[in-house]
This record gives sequence, structure tokens and C-alpha cells, in this order.
Amino acid sequence: MATDPLSQTLSALADPTRRAILARLALGEASVTELAEPFDMSLPAVSKHLKVLEHAGLISRSKDAQWRPCRLEAAPMKEAAAFLDAYRRFWEESLDRLDDYLQALQATDPDAKPN
Amino acid sequence: MATDPLSQTLSALADPTRRAILARLALGEASVTELAEPFDMSLPAVSKHLKVLEHAGLISRSKDAQWRPCRLEAAPMKEAAAFLDAYRRFWEESLDRLDDYLQALQATDPDAKPN
Repeated sequence: MATDPLSQTLSALADPTRRAILARLALGEASVTELAEPFDMSLPAVSKHLKVLEHAGLISRSKDAQWRPCRLEAAPMKEAAAFLDAYRRFWEESLDRLDDYLQALQATDPDAKPN
Repeated sequence: MATDPLSQTLSALADPTRRAILARLALGEASVTELAEPFDMSLPAVSKHLKVLEHAGLISRSKDAQWRPCRLEAAPMKEAAAFLDAYRRFWEESLDRLDDYLQALQATDPDAKPN
């Protein structure tokens, strides 16, 4: 469905299993079997996730070695990070507002201490 | 489908129309009609996108005013930015590798100047 690269990146990352696969690959290359191990998933299910990641350019798979190791390709994340960074001042503001609110709450009720 | 907050945030952002809506709201509150204007979309289609954004906590809608303005809520983006930031060194490395490759290419063929 997602056609533009940024949507494709964000969509591929919008899954906890795919994020766990990337976290594993951040430690080094791994085969599909190795990637499947920590999950209670079939190899075809893991392969499906790998296809999504490969299509988004977030991993590559060696064509040479027989075990076809997967490798993290983080470059597409740069655009996603830049997109989010443009909103940084907004999320910082919203956390400031929450902080002000909690402090006002505490001033009203001295027993309402944050724990 | 996405149940964890980070997946929900990334999934909501994985659409160019929804990102355009957020960019508009970064300029200030807007009604559904105002948000629909720049897109060649029906109000129900825009409302559907707004529901996705609202469900992800990326916008809120005033219950009071009759025109129910939409407002940007950027707080969920913080976790997404932190997630991506953990991969920063990987995408910087991959850009360094590309740079090395281009420089090596240029050293081999002095006419191959970057433009």
C-alpha cells in the first residue's frame, strides 16, 4: 500500500517483531533460522517479516553464502528521524505542559507527591 | 492491528496524507473542513485519517467548540524518535561507506566528479 519511501520505512517499523529483528541485526548478521529462534513463529512467518524489511530497504540478504545472512541497512531510518525531528519542539512543549500541570496539582494538594 | 503504542504511532505516520495533516496542524488548530481543503478528498475520507491520528494520540479534537478544531499532539513522536536514534550510528556508518565508495570511484576516474 505505502508507495513513498518514508511511508514504506515507517510502515515496516510499525511492528514489534520486525523491530526485534532489526535489534538483533544491530548485533551482527544472522540467518533466517537464527532470527526465528527467539520468536514463537514459523520460518515462513519470519520470512514474511523479512520480506517487508527487505522491500523497505531496512535489511539486505547476501546472495552468495548458502545460509544467506541478513544484514541491517539503517540508511532509510535517516529520513524518518529527520521527519520526527521537525516536530521536536512540539513534543518538548507538550511534556513541559504536563510538567506544569503536575506541579500545579502538587501545589494544590501537597500530599500528591510524584512517586 | 498495531496494539503497542510505538507501532500505533509509526503506523499512523506511515501515510503521506496523515503527515500532511500533521504538518498543517503544526501551524495551528484547524477544522476538518479546513484540513480537507488542500486534498482532493471527501470529508469522510479525511475524517477516517483523523480517526487514525486521534487513535494514535497524535491529534486531539476539541469537544467544546461547535467546529471541533483538531490540534497536534506530538508527545507520541518522542518514543518513535528515541527508537530511531538508537540506530543513528548505523545510518551514519552506511552514509560513510557510500562516501568512501564515491571517493574511491573518483580516485579511479578523475572525470567522475560529483555534481
